[in-house]
Amino acid sequence: MKIIIIGASGTIGKKVTEALQGKHEIITAGSKSGAFQLDITSPDSIEAFYKRVGPFDALVSTTGSGHFGPLGSTTPADFKKGIESKFLGQVNLVLIGQHYINAKGSFTLTSGILSEDPVVYGVNLGAINGGLNSFVIGAAIELENGIRINAVSPGVVEDSPGYFEYFPGHEPVAMDRVVNAYVKSVLGAITGQVIKVF
Amino acid sequence: MKIIIIGASGTIGKKVTEALQGKHEIITAGSKSGAFQLDITSPDSIEAFYKRVGPFDALVSTTGSGHFGPLGSTTPADFKKGIESKFLGQVNLVLIGQHYINAKGSFTLTSGILSEDPVVYGVNLGAINGGLNSFVIGAAIELENGIRINAVSPGVVEDSPGYFEYFPGHEPVAMDRVVNAYVKSVLGAITGQVIKVF
Repeated sequence: MKIIIIGASGTIGKKVTEALQGKHEIITAGSKSGAFQLDITSPDSIEAFYKRVGPFDALVSTTGSGHFGPLGSTTPADFKKGIESKFLGQVNLVLIGQHYINAKGSFTLTSGILSEDPVVYGVNLGAINGGLNSFVIGAAIELENGIRINAVSPGVVEDSPGYFEYFPGHEPVAMDRVVNAYVKSVLGAITGQVIKVF
Repeated sequence: MKIIIIGASGTIGKKVTEALQGKHEIITAGSKSGAFQLDITSPDSIEAFYKRVGPFDALVSTTGSGHFGPLGSTTPADFKKGIESKFLGQVNLVLIGQHYINAKGSFTLTSGILSEDPVVYGVNLGAINGGLNSFVIGAAIELENGIRINAVSPGVVEDSPGYFEYFPGHEPVAMDRVVNAYVKSVLGAITGQVIKVF
């Protein structure tokens, strides 16, 4: 299976890459690292990326950023910047990628716990995650040729202790569980699911 | 109570206006109709609107549009257009409005059933609705001075028979129930809730 991993050098992406490599052809990609570079905030960059990579069987996205800061000082521009990265960036990987992916392929996006279990400063990321979850639910019923789509929604991951102070009382989740969620989505058969890891 | 209703001439907005007028000072607004006009896709237009209207106690938004069409032919530009209207338009009413609303005021936004119960062609609206629901959940824990925020999430409304063919098997919901959800949000005390009417 030819599997693209966008954000392959990130905290989660590198572990997903380790779990899938060896048995599969892995194409690593990122904004600055990986075998291919692309800017997910640019549809043109995404289109050019797919043309270079060619047909593929699975795409895993563990990329995109959001605004993290007080609601009271969040501007429309702050909010939109996150929407254009983690939300529309991942959506556009699918909207454009549906024309390049092989039959029976799959898309696996990354949302997160803040869609339903908010923390202070997290409203932009929560909204992004909620939008992504509903996107996969809606896209799954229209994708053709057996193509599947899911989102992995992790809680704060044990490998990211720098975030713990912003998630008081949240149980850090084991990276093995998070990685398994991506493996289930890519190698399993489910579609239209939000795979919660928290 | 001084209540702003954006989208006051729409199918739902006009019924909400009827339910609240008489006992409250109602400020109607819309893109083309109402006492005030504004373009919710423009933060500058929203800011100018609030400056004209002055301090207020509640804002009800029943406005914004999304893209409705096949996933296979939906472009990043199609998708973004809906995001900038129904999603970011309503978010920006809050981001900007939080600096104009009176203490103990409330924001009531409109999402919809497609966030969790998708229909063919509805992926953009579903994603918008999911993002809005998570936005209110996250914003509620940061708004200060007793300011509240909720979303009303209606199913397909009995007053919109033109949509029925796109919602096969969905039970149309009575307009009275939808109107009550807005009244509950504005005159009640809940916050951070997605009030489902389906």
